[in-house]
Amino acid sequence: LRQGFPEVIFGAGKSAGQVERIMASLAAKGNNILVTRLDEAKALAVKEAFPSAMWHADARCLTLEQRPIEKRGLGTVLVLSAGTSDLPVAAEALVTLRMLGNEASHLYDVGVAGIHRLLARRDVLFSARVLIVVAGMEGALPSVVGGLVDRPVIAVPTSVGYGASFGGIAALLGMLNSCAAGVTVVNIDNGFGAAVAASKINRE
Amino acid sequence: LRQGFPEVIFGAGKSAGQVERIMASLAAKGNNILVTRLDEAKALAVKEAFPSAMWHADARCLTLEQRPIEKRGLGTVLVLSAGTSDLPVAAEALVTLRMLGNEASHLYDVGVAGIHRLLARRDVLFSARVLIVVAGMEGALPSVVGGLVDRPVIAVPTSVGYGASFGGIAALLGMLNSCAAGVTVVNIDNGFGAAVAASKINRE
Amino acid sequence: LRQGFPEVIFGAGKSAGQVERIMASLAAKGNNILVTRLDEAKALAVKEAFPSAMWHADARCLTLEQRPIEKRGLGTVLVLSAGTSDLPVAAEALVTLRMLGNEASHLYDVGVAGIHRLLARRDVLFSARVLIVVAGMEGALPSVVGGLVDRPVIAVPTSVGYGASFGGIAALLGMLNSCAAGVTVVNIDNGFGAAVAASKINRE
Amino acid sequence: LRQGFPEVIFGAGKSAGQVERIMASLAAKGNNILVTRLDEAKALAVKEAFPSAMWHADARCLTLEQRPIEKRGLGTVLVLSAGTSDLPVAAEALVTLRMLGNEASHLYDVGVAGIHRLLARRDVLFSARVLIVVAGMEGALPSVVGGLVDRPVIAVPTSVGYGASFGGIAALLGMLNSCAAGVTVVNIDNGFGAAVAASKINRE
Amino acid sequence: LRQGFPEVIFGAGKSAGQVERIMASLAAKGNNILVTRLDEAKALAVKEAFPSAMWHADARCLTLEQRPIEKRGLGTVLVLSAGTSDLPVAAEALVTLRMLGNEASHLYDVGVAGIHRLLARRDVLFSARVLIVVAGMEGALPSVVGGLVDRPVIAVPTSVGYGASFGGIAALLGMLNSCAAGVTVVNIDNGFGAAVAASKINRE
Amino acid sequence: LRQGFPEVIFGAGKSAGQVERIMASLAAKGNNILVTRLDEAKALAVKEAFPSAMWHADARCLTLEQRPIEKRGLGTVLVLSAGTSDLPVAAEALVTLRMLGNEASHLYDVGVAGIHRLLARRDVLFSARVLIVVAGMEGALPSVVGGLVDRPVIAVPTSVGYGASFGGIAALLGMLNSCAAGVTVVNIDNGFGAAVAASKINRE
Amino acid sequence: LRQGFPEVIFGAGKSAGQVERIMASLAAKGNNILVTRLDEAKALAVKEAFPSAMWHADARCLTLEQRPIEKRGLGTVLVLSAGTSDLPVAAEALVTLRMLGNEASHLYDVGVAGIHRLLARRDVLFSARVLIVVAGMEGALPSVVGGLVDRPVIAVPTSVGYGASFGGIAALLGMLNSCAAGVTVVNIDNGFGAAVAASKINRE
Amino acid sequence: LRQGFPEVIFGAGKSAGQVERIMASLAAKGNNILVTRLDEAKALAVKEAFPSAMWHADARCLTLEQRPIEKRGLGTVLVLSAGTSDLPVAAEALVTLRMLGNEASHLYDVGVAGIHRLLARRDVLFSARVLIVVAGMEGALPSVVGGLVDRPVIAVPTSVGYGASFGGIAALLGMLNSCAAGVTVVNIDNGFGAAVAASKINRE
Ligand SMILES: Nc1ncnc2c1ncn2[C@@H]1O[C@H](COP(=O)(O)O)[C@@H](O)[C@H]1O
Ligand SMILES: Nc1ncnc2c1ncn2[C@@H]1O[C@H](COP(=O)(O)O)[C@@H](O)[C@H]1O
Ligand SMILES: Nc1ncnc2c1ncn2[C@@H]1O[C@H](COP(=O)(O)O)[C@@H](O)[C@H]1O
Ligand SMILES: Nc1ncnc2c1ncn2[C@@H]1O[C@H](COP(=O)(O)O)[C@@H](O)[C@H]1O
Ligand SMILES: [Mg+2]
Ligand SMILES: [Mg+2]
Ligand SMILES: [Mg+2]
Ligand SMILES: [Mg+2]
Ligand SMILES: [Mg+2]
Ligand SMILES: [Mg+2]
Ligand SMILES: [Mg+2]
Ligand SMILES: [Mg+2]
Repeated sequence: LRQGFPEVIFGAGKSAGQVERIMASLAAKGNNILVTRLDEAKALAVKEAFPSAMWHADARCLTLEQRPIEKRGLGTVLVLSAGTSDLPVAAEALVTLRMLGNEASHLYDVGVAGIHRLLARRDVLFSARVLIVVAGMEGALPSVVGGLVDRPVIAVPTSVGYGASFGGIAALLGMLNSCAAGVTVVNIDNGFGAAVAASKINRE
Repeated sequence: LRQGFPEVIFGAGKSAGQVERIMASLAAKGNNILVTRLDEAKALAVKEAFPSAMWHADARCLTLEQRPIEKRGLGTVLVLSAGTSDLPVAAEALVTLRMLGNEASHLYDVGVAGIHRLLARRDVLFSARVLIVVAGMEGALPSVVGGLVDRPVIAVPTSVGYGASFGGIAALLGMLNSCAAGVTVVNIDNGFGAAVAASKINRE
Repeated sequence: LRQGFPEVIFGAGKSAGQVERIMASLAAKGNNILVTRLDEAKALAVKEAFPSAMWHADARCLTLEQRPIEKRGLGTVLVLSAGTSDLPVAAEALVTLRMLGNEASHLYDVGVAGIHRLLARRDVLFSARVLIVVAGMEGALPSVVGGLVDRPVIAVPTSVGYGASFGGIAALLGMLNSCAAGVTVVNIDNGFGAAVAASKINRE
Repeated sequence: LRQGFPEVIFGAGKSAGQVERIMASLAAKGNNILVTRLDEAKALAVKEAFPSAMWHADARCLTLEQRPIEKRGLGTVLVLSAGTSDLPVAAEALVTLRMLGNEASHLYDVGVAGIHRLLARRDVLFSARVLIVVAGMEGALPSVVGGLVDRPVIAVPTSVGYGASFGGIAALLGMLNSCAAGVTVVNIDNGFGAAVAASKINRE
Repeated sequence: LRQGFPEVIFGAGKSAGQVERIMASLAAKGNNILVTRLDEAKALAVKEAFPSAMWHADARCLTLEQRPIEKRGLGTVLVLSAGTSDLPVAAEALVTLRMLGNEASHLYDVGVAGIHRLLARRDVLFSARVLIVVAGMEGALPSVVGGLVDRPVIAVPTSVGYGASFGGIAALLGMLNSCAAGVTVVNIDNGFGAAVAASKINRE
Repeated sequence: LRQGFPEVIFGAGKSAGQVERIMASLAAKGNNILVTRLDEAKALAVKEAFPSAMWHADARCLTLEQRPIEKRGLGTVLVLSAGTSDLPVAAEALVTLRMLGNEASHLYDVGVAGIHRLLARRDVLFSARVLIVVAGMEGALPSVVGGLVDRPVIAVPTSVGYGASFGGIAALLGMLNSCAAGVTVVNIDNGFGAAVAASKINRE
Repeated sequence: LRQGFPEVIFGAGKSAGQVERIMASLAAKGNNILVTRLDEAKALAVKEAFPSAMWHADARCLTLEQRPIEKRGLGTVLVLSAGTSDLPVAAEALVTLRMLGNEASHLYDVGVAGIHRLLARRDVLFSARVLIVVAGMEGALPSVVGGLVDRPVIAVPTSVGYGASFGGIAALLGMLNSCAAGVTVVNIDNGFGAAVAASKINRE
Repeated sequence: LRQGFPEVIFGAGKSAGQVERIMASLAAKGNNILVTRLDEAKALAVKEAFPSAMWHADARCLTLEQRPIEKRGLGTVLVLSAGTSDLPVAAEALVTLRMLGNEASHLYDVGVAGIHRLLARRDVLFSARVLIVVAGMEGALPSVVGGLVDRPVIAVPTSVGYGASFGGIAALLGMLNSCAAGVTVVNIDNGFGAAVAASKINRE
């Protein structure tokens, strides 16, 4: 993540004070900043010190834009998700994509058990340059999408589910075994990592 | 598995001699007989003692029909499968269904990564009374099928795959976490068990 | 889950406000509504907005009946459970079965370590058209029941137990390996899914 | 395993020559000898050197009795097993029990899916002082037996099964989670260990 | 657990009110009562209704003795434990043993990394009729004890530890693989079950 | 995998005869063909029917080029591997990349325990457009490479190793947890899938 | 841990009162004392009784030095760590090393995804006699370090991470499979154990 | 593994021809060579090309000494093992230790279930500078040894066992959780790695 790019802080396990101190030192250099995995209480505390920072509640991300974000992508990155519980991971990917200078859009509520809703939006699928597919439970969505499009598909398993979903293992295994060749996978709930990968692909 | 039904022998781990002796004692009572999980060499040996037995190579099953099979099902049981490697499990289900007195048919090569092939056969899906969906790798097919039909869907994970498919665990977990409510699941590669369950559902 | 059927909301991970908003929009269409996995505090908050909704504390379900439920089942669905800790899962199945238009009854305290209590109720077992068997710990009850009846048996493992029960894995594996052919299995604690499957079987 | 007791050789992974050499040195001291986990080819080779040794094919054990076995048990140890594939493990337990000076008997084909066959033999169950219950697949038999008798029950999971039986893990977990209090468990396929434990219990 | 024996209530997951109601109905029949897995707050609430009940804080057990406990054991059951964190499980075993009419004693702080402390108490080991060995972490103590004594040894793995102890799995596997033949094992933290098994062995 | 692209046959579990028949029908349409996971004996048998097919022994792949392969990539895809045992997976990726119209090159013997060998080839790393990193054992190479380059990195865990490598699980988990953001992962040993993904990225 | 050495108390799961009582009895003998895994609230309570005790907040350790610590090491033990979340484990190792009489120093923020930061400090690496490498996520740092130095390397996996890091399992497996021969491993988060091992190596 | 040291070839998965070619190129430089994990047939083939090479059948290692091995250790490295099946791993460690210039000795048949045999050899334990403890099954030996000596202890789990030993996982987990502080662990069956680590510790 080099120059022109935002500095990224992984918020989980850090106190508001720690986040604030790291932000202060990075902000002093004029950088844009992205904080992920922050909870609301900490975010509001941090915002008092950085009033121009933006809090993305659905994505649990805080962003500080000190310079205009340079558009660097060749096309649009499309983020797909199925259930409402997958939304925070999809949102983390979207915020990250935009901070990295990509056009990004979102197609949601397109699970495999209602396949017609997905097929009805084939136009959107076909107009994307890179696709990020977020899915929990059986993690089947990337296989269907990967069979429909020719573009790179990055699959993000989520920890959504209960019982034999084992905190995202079922979805992770489903995606690694996708019968649609060429699907690649990131860690459970790692919307940020998927966005970084998509961003590298989307640059000329 | 009571009267009017075939006697069933689980062939795995039994010698041809053992299978032959058990068959002889059951055949003496006039029963129909189904032997599952038999390999070809043993099957041919056993067939010498029972020349009227039929060998179903694709299903690794041997059947002996001493009486006409009473038709007892209310409708058709449809078996779906995706890859060619799932065929033996699907075939085991089909042979079992027929020995248990069901109309049964097969729709194959309908994987989730080529969803149009499945959608093109919606008529067949809708005409079945019970559906058995056989799938390996990510095991996503039952979710898609379960979202299309209103009838009972029984999912059979197969041990097909490599690496993180872990001998069928990935498919099994996918099916247990299906987002299509009402899908039920049997053990990995258990085409026989799925057929017995479907048969109980198909009877009035 | 199509017309004539209730709309279903998965309550886990949703705030009372979110549940209320979704219910409002579904209720406006005149539908019956079933909310599962709701905790008591949220349920009471939601009930203030929908005073005619019913709270099923044992099942952690909230139901709203705006139209009479059409009876669609051919027979009775029997729910069996062993320990008291399995009761919430059994209750979720029972509420769902009734919302889906089935006659449903419950036989409890019939664990495998006191087999006579189960055998004493063979009449009830034999009069059911479909059976849902809820069990935690070693998950052995479906095998015994499956050996006694000829009807479809759906097994629901529960997360009850400690140590090597691994949150329901022991029960799940026990059920998948049932030596009673034709037992099918749903996800751990998934009383709702078992009821949907039973309901599809119970319809003509 | 002290004086008066047989010397025990674990045959797995040893060559016929190695077994023969160890037997020769032990036999020279006049001891009785039990070799477990031996395959037929090796056993026959070893028998040439020790013509009075007995080969128990079903148990894969070789025994050499140089002195009369002193009867030391207070009662009978009963070994129960369900499927035919559990027989070798049950047989290993029986041979070991007898070499250790116990009265031992065997009740087989009494699986949980045919509970009446077990209940029909309650007399045999009640007359045993210690019970060893051998079961694969879902491993449910010890729970049922443990609920019927008051005597110590030792459960032996077997590696019999396929798919989600995971080489005996399903049965092992089932037994560890038995709802019949007081069932204890040994390693998968360890008929020998169960017999040693039962023998210690059976001695005054 | 038949007549002359206490009634047992598994306290985990039950409210103080539920425990109280069950106790009341059992106490009315004059039985002795043992409640396990109770936390202090609930125990104190329950004790208000049953002032003669005794609270065993270290064992998290509540007992109510309405009749004298009949001594039924042939000898002493010895409970061994290593670390201080294993004490609650050992205490649960001790309370259960006494409620079941056994002489029971306790040897603690005898871990395998200080083997001399164990060896210094060989006299105590040799005077026991049955031994219960409680150990967490690597669960090695039962192997050492089983190699020293000839009496039945029941091993109880505990969930004590961190990291790769996996909540008791490491200890459980260690015990199942004990190289001391004849050690049997119960579920993780199951001091109660070990005591019931020991009690059955200890009776003539 | 659409027009202009080779047809792909997964050779594992297919007989030489089956591969030959599928190839014949695909070849009749004038397509290029790639067969993966073929063993040498079958490959030689198939080559008799298709003398112009090429056998890539290191990659266990057979290719048939009936038309010139259209160059479609924008840059070079670099395949890196560490140990000699990772070579077959790297070779499968290379053959696939070339059949899909990419410039591809290979950098080998660059494991993390000899980091200077990797750093000495920074020029090669920096000149690639997409990188595929093949590694077994601890699977650390993608993290180091991902920290050095800005381009998309696809990680392929291999089943190389023993003991706690668990057939590639250690490497797989290492790659999913890579601290170098933007690394994506495919199934264990899936050189083919990595090449398909890289090929989609490499196209304009 | 014999004479001249501090007494060590494992603080996890002990109340402030328990820690205080154990400390009092050990302190009476004039020993130095190290308490690990203590949380801040308990530490402050204990410090009131032992005002001269020192609280190491980053290491969650409390130390009491009643006698000067005898320097016993032959050289320096270097502790390396990558991410900020690995710091508490590194700090536990450092405090332990010093209490055991070693010179110890710390090199941090040297993760594998920024390999130049590590290489820039080769002088520090080469001057150490023993190295402890603390790393979470993919746990790759010990392989790189082990390839650079000739001295003993002890690897400590940490539970840092999410999703497929499985509480440190990914890092643990990575380290056990290190391709740098001679790396040894301790339990997840076990900075204390690594320091004890390093200390034994560092003594003449 | 730098100058003065042997070159090491990992023989597993290499053909005799491959091993021979690598040996030839290394031998040309005058190096000593150690080949591990070689099977007998290949070893004999290789020995024809290198008649002065020595075959260590018990260790499955081939060594070629072209120069005298420089003694570099400060003391003796003691290898302990319990069962006869652990001998090959112990032997691999011994051969490696000697090729690396260490005095090495072996104490065998000292399992934890016969603790007196170990205690009878305390003199040998106390005279070693570094100890390698090889154990399968429950892997308890390192804890006992680590409690007796003050020197560094390296534990090697072996894949010996069956059932719940899971190919060495039980022993591995036991060792990682050793209650004897300061025990470090290497991969399952990795006698070579333990010897390299011990050798680094044994050098001044
Ligand atoms: N207890 C439950 N377990 C599993 N799935 C459920 C449960 N309750 C509801 N569902 C499913 O969740 C869907 C609604 O999810 P949502 O849109 O998040 O409220 C329903 O259509 C059901 O298929
Ligand atoms: N089938 C078996 N399963 C587990 N342990 C066994 C078995 N047979 C023998 N043993 C144990 O193995 C020891 C002998 O091992 P060995 O010296 O390798 O022949 C005996 O003392 C028994 O404790
Ligand atoms: N080595 C491989 N690993 C994973 N998938 C593969 C591999 N080779 C081919 N495939 C996939 O398998 C499909 C062909 O399978 P089949 O019809 O069974 O020959 C191709 O379309 C590929 O997507
Ligand atoms: N038995 C063994 N276990 C683990 N690693 C080994 C073993 N034998 C050799 N190695 C390592 O493998 C490397 C050589 O691998 P290779 O180049 O494939 O022959 C050596 O430098 C050693 O680090
Ligand atoms: Mg999904
Ligand atoms: Mg599939
Ligand atoms: Mg149960
Ligand atoms: Mg069974
Ligand atoms: Mg212990
Ligand atoms: Mg590697
Ligand atoms: Mg790391
Ligand atoms: Mg051992």
